[in-house]
Amino acid sequence: MNNGLSISLRGMEMPESPIRKLAPLAYAAQDRGVKIYRLNIGQPDLPTPQKALDVLKHIDRKTLEYSPSQGYRSLRQALVNYYDRYQIKLRADEIIITSGGSEAVLFAFLSCLNPGDEIIVPEPAYANYMSFAVSAGAVIRTVTTTIEEGFCLPKVEKFEELINERTKAILICNPNNPTGYLYTQKEMNRIRDLVKKYNLYLFSDEVYREFIYTGSPYISAMHLEGIEQNVVLIDSVSKRYSECGIRIGALITKNAEVRKTVMKFCQARLSPPLIGQMIAEASIEGTEQYSREVYDEYVERRKSLIDGVNRIPGCYTPVPMGAFYTVAQLPVEDAEDFCAWCLTDFSWKDEKTPADCAGETIMMAPAAGFYSTPGMGRNQVRLAYVLNKHDIQRSLFILSKALEKYNGGTD
Amino acid sequence: MNNGLSISLRGMEMPESPIRKLAPLAYAAQDRGVKIYRLNIGQPDLPTPQKALDVLKHIDRKTLEYSPSQGYRSLRQALVNYYDRYQIKLRADEIIITSGGSEAVLFAFLSCLNPGDEIIVPEPAYANYMSFAVSAGAVIRTVTTTIEEGFCLPKVEKFEELINERTKAILICNPNNPTGYLYTQKEMNRIRDLVKKYNLYLFSDEVYREFIYTGSPYISAMHLEGIEQNVVLIDSVSKRYSECGIRIGALITKNAEVRKTVMKFCQARLSPPLIGQMIAEASIEGTEQYSREVYDEYVERRKSLIDGVNRIPGCYTPVPMGAFYTVAQLPVEDAEDFCAWCLTDFSWKDEKTPADCAGETIMMAPAAGFYSTPGMGRNQVRLAYVLNKHDIQRSLFILSKALEKYNGGTD
Repeated sequence: MNNGLSISLRGMEMPESPIRKLAPLAYAAQDRGVKIYRLNIGQPDLPTPQKALDVLKHIDRKTLEYSPSQGYRSLRQALVNYYDRYQIKLRADEIIITSGGSEAVLFAFLSCLNPGDEIIVPEPAYANYMSFAVSAGAVIRTVTTTIEEGFCLPKVEKFEELINERTKAILICNPNNPTGYLYTQKEMNRIRDLVKKYNLYLFSDEVYREFIYTGSPYISAMHLEGIEQNVVLIDSVSKRYSECGIRIGALITKNAEVRKTVMKFCQARLSPPLIGQMIAEASIEGTEQYSREVYDEYVERRKSLIDGVNRIPGCYTPVPMGAFYTVAQLPVEDAEDFCAWCLTDFSWKDEKTPADCAGETIMMAPAAGFYSTPGMGRNQVRLAYVLNKHDIQRSLFILSKALEKYNGGTD
Repeated sequence: MNNGLSISLRGMEMPESPIRKLAPLAYAAQDRGVKIYRLNIGQPDLPTPQKALDVLKHIDRKTLEYSPSQGYRSLRQALVNYYDRYQIKLRADEIIITSGGSEAVLFAFLSCLNPGDEIIVPEPAYANYMSFAVSAGAVIRTVTTTIEEGFCLPKVEKFEELINERTKAILICNPNNPTGYLYTQKEMNRIRDLVKKYNLYLFSDEVYREFIYTGSPYISAMHLEGIEQNVVLIDSVSKRYSECGIRIGALITKNAEVRKTVMKFCQARLSPPLIGQMIAEASIEGTEQYSREVYDEYVERRKSLIDGVNRIPGCYTPVPMGAFYTVAQLPVEDAEDFCAWCLTDFSWKDEKTPADCAGETIMMAPAAGFYSTPGMGRNQVRLAYVLNKHDIQRSLFILSKALEKYNGGTD
């Protein structure tokens, strides 16, 4: 292969994204004139705050120069105020601005882990954690959460079975992508005790904190007492302000040694995006009304999706407490095959189908790609409720028709 | 240290940037009211093209969403046209947009090299290459170029001495940062032959191609015949359009296997900055007049700097053929000590000193940090000519006065 030039082993170990796997089939369906309802991706369709968009009109610099490697102080200060609303007390120098939450995860791994070090992650999990671990030469080991138990945190023993001298960290996503699960105070305390007992890092990805629907309290890793030096918070403005494209996230820790190391990686890549920082800063302050409206919209969408899924015969999803995803079980053996079939062999047409479409179908993310354990999640899909209520309802109707046909019903 | 929590070895091996090392001293000098002429950084002071800035005023999207992981096709197509002007023939799918040239270097290393693999780099070299190599677990080995020989490419034998079974790549920066050297056709052919003979990758960082002052031809790695599959071009719009802050670069290769692997890393980080891509695209086309003016400005600055340095007793710099840096030798034993002293113990005041300043001084980058070989470059500094002509002349006057005082002259 490749004229004898090497390709890195890392590259070969990088998993294919469960979200992107079906993309070529979706393009082909679109080319046939089929309209696709995309329940597969976490790309919010809601508008970015107008206040943030207006910033673009008023940038009066003549030179779009490097910003500080740590990010602008004014943005970090705005974040200090933001976290204060959640009873997370920080100083601006404890916050490092990154190119999206993605870079924060990568820099956390590169700074805290040596090649071969292990991280324990509850699965199903955001698939790109695996890619960043591969990049850093670290190893992800998973404790399995199950749909039957509503994806709650596994017992402490399940973690302890995996802990050995290479174990350096636990990684959680809370509220969770892909399950929408929100860890309870009790569960967070169990994590805290584990972290303390084995002196591990706790990487906590909390990019969905705005989206908690049950009145349950949001317990940040930053709220846990006695492990202040162990916690590395991963954050991003992408989801909460519908501005995924600006690539602004943050790595936050009270551990000065970790920050010092992270800063070396930050300095090597020079700076986070300049204009993105301006937009992020404008998004954080004075957008309470926006956040309320967005929240209310997701509440509605969640209800539509969850009620709808659970009404389709053979389908089941626990009620997600946060984020804008849920993992649902379908009455099929192989959800990946079914998801592909929806794009290649199925489309629905009735009087509601727009006249300019050859038909309508749905795109979902097969859930197996979010598990590391082989065979897990085979009959599950991740559904994102980033479509409007009308489209969600139409999607679910089409899902029910697709299942009927796939499982041998007639057209 | 650190409560027993691990810090990665990688982090400890990450070199401190020679450019940033003196930053705290500079802040302290500023706090004392001293005006600093910054010859140390490659942050152009010239304006970004107005056409590109105007894009910001006309962005009418409502949602700042993810862009494709490979970058927008329209930007990649604009780059195809751009490279065509340099006789580099590409297709849009051979171009991958990255978060600055920095990410392109990192992804090239992660995709082509396994931990322990070696890259040969002529030194002095851009210091962050080392950081990215450390991130990827790769090892940089250097062939030394010398100020006496004008930083020309070392003999083939010098490369061959370092080549072993772990050698996987040669990395060049052309025109060169920090030396301003431009490789000749003969030198590029020698590199080509080495790459071919040992079947190595050739990583070629050509972000300064616009800035070639001698009428010598620009030979891109992409022009070399017979090694099309070996070449990975690193590029960035930062320097040529004075838009370092937008973080838009590119990784370009005709090697489909490499692209496929790079894309996995790209997909993990989701997308390059959205608004940066819009600005970059507007910068590339219809800015010929801008580029000519910028070029003319650098021609003047280069002349000012080089003539001026070589007129100071004991100072010497070869004439750089490209980029906007030069490495100069100073009549001091330890340039790092001298550079620090300029910020801590020296400032100049005369009738030309602005009334609101306590004095004026200069900031330079000690060149030792650009070499891996211990002891090399101790009496050298890198000077960037990113100041206007007047400030360059003033800087050189202050440099001459600082040298006089440092070397025992009277005030």
